[in-house]
Amino acid sequence: VQWDFGVPDIRIAPARALGRAYGRVLRRHAATVLAYDRYSDAPEAPLKAELIAMLSMNRSLAIEPDELVLTRGSQMGLYLIARCLIRAGDLVAVEEPGYSPAADLFRRLGARVAPIAVDGAGIQVDALAALHAERPVRAVFVTPHHQFPTTVTLSASRRLALMELCARARIALIEDDFDHEFHYDARPVLPLASVDSARVVLYVGSLSKVVAPGLRLGYVVAPKPFARQMEALRRLIDIQPDLVQAGAVAELFQDGEIPRHLRRARRIYGARRDHLAALLRARLGGVLEFELPAGGLAFWCEVDPPIDVEEWAKRAQALGLVFRTGRRFYLDQRPRPFVRLGFGRLDEREQAQAVARLVRAIPRQRSA
Amino acid sequence: VQWDFGVPDIRIAPARALGRAYGRVLRRHAATVLAYDRYSDAPEAPLKAELIAMLSMNRSLAIEPDELVLTRGSQMGLYLIARCLIRAGDLVAVEEPGYSPAADLFRRLGARVAPIAVDGAGIQVDALAALHAERPVRAVFVTPHHQFPTTVTLSASRRLALMELCARARIALIEDDFDHEFHYDARPVLPLASVDSARVVLYVGSLSKVVAPGLRLGYVVAPKPFARQMEALRRLIDIQPDLVQAGAVAELFQDGEIPRHLRRARRIYGARRDHLAALLRARLGGVLEFELPAGGLAFWCEVDPPIDVEEWAKRAQALGLVFRTGRRFYLDQRPRPFVRLGFGRLDEREQAQAVARLVRAIPRQRSA
Repeated sequence: VQWDFGVPDIRIAPARALGRAYGRVLRRHAATVLAYDRYSDAPEAPLKAELIAMLSMNRSLAIEPDELVLTRGSQMGLYLIARCLIRAGDLVAVEEPGYSPAADLFRRLGARVAPIAVDGAGIQVDALAALHAERPVRAVFVTPHHQFPTTVTLSASRRLALMELCARARIALIEDDFDHEFHYDARPVLPLASVDSARVVLYVGSLSKVVAPGLRLGYVVAPKPFARQMEALRRLIDIQPDLVQAGAVAELFQDGEIPRHLRRARRIYGARRDHLAALLRARLGGVLEFELPAGGLAFWCEVDPPIDVEEWAKRAQALGLVFRTGRRFYLDQRPRPFVRLGFGRLDEREQAQAVARLVRAIPRQRSA
Repeated sequence: VQWDFGVPDIRIAPARALGRAYGRVLRRHAATVLAYDRYSDAPEAPLKAELIAMLSMNRSLAIEPDELVLTRGSQMGLYLIARCLIRAGDLVAVEEPGYSPAADLFRRLGARVAPIAVDGAGIQVDALAALHAERPVRAVFVTPHHQFPTTVTLSASRRLALMELCARARIALIEDDFDHEFHYDARPVLPLASVDSARVVLYVGSLSKVVAPGLRLGYVVAPKPFARQMEALRRLIDIQPDLVQAGAVAELFQDGEIPRHLRRARRIYGARRDHLAALLRARLGGVLEFELPAGGLAFWCEVDPPIDVEEWAKRAQALGLVFRTGRRFYLDQRPRPFVRLGFGRLDEREQAQAVARLVRAIPRQRSA
């Protein structure tokens, strides 16, 4: 069993509806979607229109089509942003603990990456300001909604402070809102991009959690000149979007399949969250400590200090259970007493089995 | 009417079969193709196996799965190659006239691009050798099968000379075999990659012409260490291949749809080639001169010198006919007395209409 760190359950994805949508698009619109896009007028317009409507209705983001760039998943969004924004030697700030693929990307492109600590209110904006006072920060990468991996929501005062700092200092604010849709206890918090009057936010979204990770369809919202630059780079990498896929997903929106799926998925994931919380408290109460996350697809658990978490993971693997420990969310990759446990992908029975193995794998405690 | 410069006719593409294949994959294999690929074992293996079988059977290319990198069309193949290979200031040689998007890409990535003339036997290898003697050439980009845009096939002696030069001088030989399948009068010429004992060839292929340009599915064959490097960069850009698409295309191969489509397409395009040749000779005999190409999807026509080709294109556009003149295939973009006219996308009736407009648009001849 692989215990994911927060991915959706493919078994509830609208796979058949998606298959039918592909079929329809290829029956009705083959002449457009199978051709080079220069032979027709804005063939990706239907999907863009659906995304724009969704962003407006659910996230208070009012944008125009040429502020929206279609990408292959959010990873390509980050790549395009980084390539257009960052020059070798630039300083880029990231949350720590944080989403290491983003930090890896910035480093690979020549940036110096500086970690900014995350606490119970999200990224410590004071620390970012202090860093910037020392040396200009080109960009900061944040996941304010359900911080990755801690699941913390950026507090209202920190939101304000972060926006003010970035606007004043012209720091590009890369906002990755990777699982906006999955919020259980209240209404989702609106993106920073929705209150971005200074236009410093580059907003990255994806349908990987909405439909399925294998769909590889993401987008970036950016000011027009930057969006144009990203679009030009995307064409250099990948002449045109996958219009077949874009058409199929537009159909899923049009016939209401995506909102329907999301309502169902939220109900299922909400129940699984509560189930796993109860299970962990009952079976691992003294070992793992966590806050019930308001959204997202995973718990961030602190491990009781006497337990060596890396040893625990090793023993679990021997029992056939793989899970992710804290180290991979830190730039220095050194062991940290945390684990991130997804609650979306495993159903109740599977959660019980996985927790049973977790319990069996607990190593003898280190002597102090 | 847009007179393309050599693209397939979407109307004969196996669109419905592709739609059914998407549907089947999403019914039968959703758990694999909709998930992150790390949750299953080589989920792109079925498509790779089909491509490997095709390359072995039709192109005498014997390769292993880890010498094959899946990409979004050949453009991404070129991007990955260029990023992994070229450092700012490197010298890259390209055919002239040639495929300008490749030259643009190399330049955009900081390379110095040097044009090497193409004649009736393909790229002038002596000129490449002379250039290299002056200043080391890092890579050369060639389209030896049906040279783009001249349609010329690289002669046997030039093939040998090019391979020897690249092997001796360790020049990376980027071979773009973009329309291998469309050869009419004899068997296709085997790729340089099939006789690459020195392993200097990076072989770029695509299903854009085989199935349809909108499909965005290409591949690169490269020595393992370089393939690994490309794979790592691809993951940085675009975490994983589109497994839904990969699965659907694998099904098209498995049920014989692709070979069946290719047989039919070759018959249709061969007839259209002959039809357009007859038409051009009858209606524009004194104005356009061309060799009947053995393969590909377009004619390369020399325009009678007294006629100003740019003026002709302008007048044609006023009559509703767009066609591509020679200038866009040269680095300096200066007017050249050539046009490239596709014969695949327009059917016989459309060809007749387009030629009629071409004739009507002929400008008065310049006085000498």
